[in-house]
Amino acid sequence: MKRYLLTPGPVTIPPEIALKEALPIFHHRTDEFAMIYKNIAKGLKYVFQTENEVYVLAASGTGAMEMAVANLLSMGDKIIVASCGNFGDRWAEIARGYGIEVISASVRWGKTIKPAEVERALKENPDVKAVYTTFTETSTGVANDIKAIGGIVSKTNAVLVVDAISGLVGQEFRTDEWKVDAVISASQKGFMLAPGLAFITLNGKAWELVDASKIPKFYFDIKKYKKFYAAGETPFTPPLTLITALQESVRLIEERGLKNIWNDCKLLAKATRAAMKALGLELFSEVPCEIVTSASVPVDIGVKIVKTLREKYGVSIAGGQGDLKGRIIRFAHLGCIGKADLLAGFTCLEMVLIELGVKIKKGKAAAAVEEILLRT
Amino acid sequence: MKRYLLTPGPVTIPPEIALKEALPIFHHRTDEFAMIYKNIAKGLKYVFQTENEVYVLAASGTGAMEMAVANLLSMGDKIIVASCGNFGDRWAEIARGYGIEVISASVRWGKTIKPAEVERALKENPDVKAVYTTFTETSTGVANDIKAIGGIVSKTNAVLVVDAISGLVGQEFRTDEWKVDAVISASQKGFMLAPGLAFITLNGKAWELVDASKIPKFYFDIKKYKKFYAAGETPFTPPLTLITALQESVRLIEERGLKNIWNDCKLLAKATRAAMKALGLELFSEVPCEIVTSASVPVDIGVKIVKTLREKYGVSIAGGQGDLKGRIIRFAHLGCIGKADLLAGFTCLEMVLIELGVKIKKGKAAAAVEEILLRT
Repeated sequence: MKRYLLTPGPVTIPPEIALKEALPIFHHRTDEFAMIYKNIAKGLKYVFQTENEVYVLAASGTGAMEMAVANLLSMGDKIIVASCGNFGDRWAEIARGYGIEVISASVRWGKTIKPAEVERALKENPDVKAVYTTFTETSTGVANDIKAIGGIVSKTNAVLVVDAISGLVGQEFRTDEWKVDAVISASQKGFMLAPGLAFITLNGKAWELVDASKIPKFYFDIKKYKKFYAAGETPFTPPLTLITALQESVRLIEERGLKNIWNDCKLLAKATRAAMKALGLELFSEVPCEIVTSASVPVDIGVKIVKTLREKYGVSIAGGQGDLKGRIIRFAHLGCIGKADLLAGFTCLEMVLIELGVKIKKGKAAAAVEEILLRT
Repeated sequence: MKRYLLTPGPVTIPPEIALKEALPIFHHRTDEFAMIYKNIAKGLKYVFQTENEVYVLAASGTGAMEMAVANLLSMGDKIIVASCGNFGDRWAEIARGYGIEVISASVRWGKTIKPAEVERALKENPDVKAVYTTFTETSTGVANDIKAIGGIVSKTNAVLVVDAISGLVGQEFRTDEWKVDAVISASQKGFMLAPGLAFITLNGKAWELVDASKIPKFYFDIKKYKKFYAAGETPFTPPLTLITALQESVRLIEERGLKNIWNDCKLLAKATRAAMKALGLELFSEVPCEIVTSASVPVDIGVKIVKTLREKYGVSIAGGQGDLKGRIIRFAHLGCIGKADLLAGFTCLEMVLIELGVKIKKGKAAAAVEEILLRT
């Protein structure tokens, strides 16, 4: 059966990127690799909107999250975690495992982080080393105001660490301009690549913490990545086929331009929200992000919707995680998901809802999507 | 220029595996993924020759090495490291970083580990938690007698941890029969895959140490991998394209049969040694392994040999690492390297040596290889 992947990662890999993974492999301690890696490094600065170095490592995004904890802190340090979902909570879980004291500026799943709460927590705890938060929380579809939080944290001694795994590329994000001190991301979202690569970038303020960090680490030791970076190398054997694909991904992003990609996602997000409402589904997120839209579904059919959609029509969307299992659905609109994919996805979703007994007039979702798309 | 990759990893990826990486991606929290992952899990038990579970993670081989340190030990523990090269030394480096006391049963680079030395070190230090060593030391081309070491360590309370990154698949290795308690490996050697996947397996004796380990870890926490394994899942987003390729790799290995692959490598290793001698190059390893052969070269042309071979003929072999830089060359014969590749590689190497002023009668390397190959 033909498959439509409309999940917020992994996302469909465009054929021109996918085929790069099948190219003959070559050795990584060569001028050839160094040239490719330096080219990628330049492109990554553009993607992250930073003047600082961006390191690439073989790991899932969680590996980069751990790197951002293990390199910036020491046991007994105090941090603020501002979480609004499953992945934000992961910051706290990783940090506590390292003996870090975690102060919460978190909100209920579905809500957006309150910058004023972060400010209050910083004032009450002037000794915190860092604030860890999430740009777009994939588990709830919420966007956080990183620009506002960056403005607040930058006035203190603490550094701001942001998980931009799902939001980078798809939604406007400006590392330097927004005064974000450390950003991590991964390959299987906006980069339109297979999972397996993670990214991390630090500014000077964050590097000062690296020098003071006493947590033992080897594979995730960012100093090793920095040392090899200058020569166009990685400290450990890089995932060469993914790196070759990354070069094409970065080229495609540069060619299309970040602003255009941001606008595309914004339009699809708007159409998605309209379609959800047309289907009688309430949006779950207080501030919906541009790369995935979540909506509440009747609990008796929540799990069935996702399963039926996949099995009957080949359309994969995501359900809820943790306590939200069966209570929300998540529909992605990032990467190479286009207008036609949106219509295919929503018309099938409408059929599934009708089959599961929801009263909907046929064609409503399509009409809502068309309404938005025809206006542009 | 057409390229011949004769380095001991990354190795050439057979087209039938490489193309799998270009296939459409699918979601990893599905029955489809679980079926593939369970199928791979079964195959990996065969490849590792173990009845225990083998976990797959997104990382280079070094990530799995760190996993084997961080999950089995606690700060202040004492271990024996039996190293004979660059990668063996890495065990000690990782462990010391975690505050582990390292007792050396190491030998000079180029020599093979002396099982009697390991036995002596164990007797003098009955409180050591583990012995860390290497199966085939890629940096020197030395094979270690893991069977003998396993026999010794198994009589003590210590566990034996073996880095089988380069040797697994290509050279006879029997985890359970040889009483190896923990084995790690990676994708870019005998598996004929791109780098980016690492593997780890523990037996019951090793799992007892896991329960006692106090080192903080998150991404490398083996308990997480065990927990998800039962459901055919990985704790973090798996590198899906590499996993799809791994399924094909394991299938090819099962189809060909380990014994046949071991015999193939053994034959190519024999021919390689003969060719090195025919070129007047002395073998560097005391006990050469079957997957890569190293030979000493004149220091004035050492670096040039590797460079010229690559630039003029597209043939990549490896030079020496660390202190051996420019002093040895390393010629691989694992994965899908075949008889014709060996002849292509050695005849080009002969030409390069002649061009660099070494007095060799043309055709000597080919004659030596043919001599061995025609006999079988």
